[in-house]
Amino acid sequence: MLVTDGAGTERAASGLKAYEVVLEWVDARILDGRLSVGDTLPAERELARMLEVSRSAVREAVRTLEAQGVVRSAVGAGAAGGTMITAVPSGALGRLLRLHVALANFPLPDVLEVRVALETLSVRLAATHASPEHLAEMEALLETMEESGIDRERFNDCDTAFHVMLARAAGNHLARDFTAAIRESMRLPILDAFRTVGAWDEVADALRADHRTIFEAVRAGDADRAAVATEEHIRSAWRLITAD
Amino acid sequence: MLVTDGAGTERAASGLKAYEVVLEWVDARILDGRLSVGDTLPAERELARMLEVSRSAVREAVRTLEAQGVVRSAVGAGAAGGTMITAVPSGALGRLLRLHVALANFPLPDVLEVRVALETLSVRLAATHASPEHLAEMEALLETMEESGIDRERFNDCDTAFHVMLARAAGNHLARDFTAAIRESMRLPILDAFRTVGAWDEVADALRADHRTIFEAVRAGDADRAAVATEEHIRSAWRLITAD
Repeated sequence: MLVTDGAGTERAASGLKAYEVVLEWVDARILDGRLSVGDTLPAERELARMLEVSRSAVREAVRTLEAQGVVRSAVGAGAAGGTMITAVPSGALGRLLRLHVALANFPLPDVLEVRVALETLSVRLAATHASPEHLAEMEALLETMEESGIDRERFNDCDTAFHVMLARAAGNHLARDFTAAIRESMRLPILDAFRTVGAWDEVADALRADHRTIFEAVRAGDADRAAVATEEHIRSAWRLITAD
Repeated sequence: MLVTDGAGTERAASGLKAYEVVLEWVDARILDGRLSVGDTLPAERELARMLEVSRSAVREAVRTLEAQGVVRSAVGAGAAGGTMITAVPSGALGRLLRLHVALANFPLPDVLEVRVALETLSVRLAATHASPEHLAEMEALLETMEESGIDRERFNDCDTAFHVMLARAAGNHLARDFTAAIRESMRLPILDAFRTVGAWDEVADALRADHRTIFEAVRAGDADRAAVATEEHIRSAWRLITAD
């Protein structure tokens, strides 16, 4: 079933590389529910035999799935242990999104529209779900951002963390993961803008006031006001940092 | 700099596996802009020497990046060719999103809220951006759904494809990828609901009418009406298929 192409790469009759055959097999079983978190993949030798690929192709596929957070190899588990399906950690999703945005696959104005849609949902939910602990963490971040003389990088880190905390407080984990991944993917573009913006003190003051407004609306449990303030903040911050 | 752990895995002093050291090196350079689309990675031997890892660790890392669509290996390019940074294809992100949603066991009501937020954004954009080709494909899907005697699986496939086509017509690729990943990850739960719902003919008729209303609003370029119709459709379809 396998041929070796001019570059020495093992390929299936379908034209897929051998390790891609293994990836497709695993993906399909996850998507239709036959494999779920905690299930174990067949042993390397068995999978190679079933899919008619080499054992090294199976190993390559497992390494890829591992790097994506889809599976974890049980260390020292012996022949019966093997490779277990894990819930993709949201960090893996965030990494791929960051790379996408960095490689300019998504124009930043497109990212902005999706951010508005997801963050307004998140703050609406946060207004009704935020715990006292979430609110305390948000307020501590605001206080750090309000310190005089805070540098632009630290300001941006707190700004990112504030938005991620809002998403966490929403209680909706899918909204949280998407929102956090997008906001984190924008950390460096936003930091670049902060570094080059002319009137930094004015920009920082406007951002502080916006964050306070969002925070007070969430603390008051006012979902509509929080959503409006969030949309205005994201759009006006965007205009401020792209104004130069 | 490298030790080999009990399971025979090469690890750096930081505790990262050797291939993860290479991944981090590449990620950091993409994120800070030192590597961009079209740039070539150092040769395998050079990268192994610089990062003090084995050449097989470099190969593993390159395979992983390749599977993620971050790099492409130039086939038969010889020693001077090597591995080039590419714009991550959205397929790679879509795949990881689908796996994430399928494995993370997000409660379906949470997925519903995120769907409403993203699909209302997508149809708003589709109302102003859909091309005649997009509209023709959507209408063909609606006509298939309106055939008498269509079975539930085919109906669901067309339903999924209609929503994915709306997201494509939006012109915002990030919104499209998120929307499509969520809708595709719901294909099987929705099909399960279709299979067990009692009054199938009534459900199918209500869904057909909803899709027509959304389609006509998008075709008329009425973003507000399309957004309202989409939110009502997603929420009422949810009530219909969970009513039993």
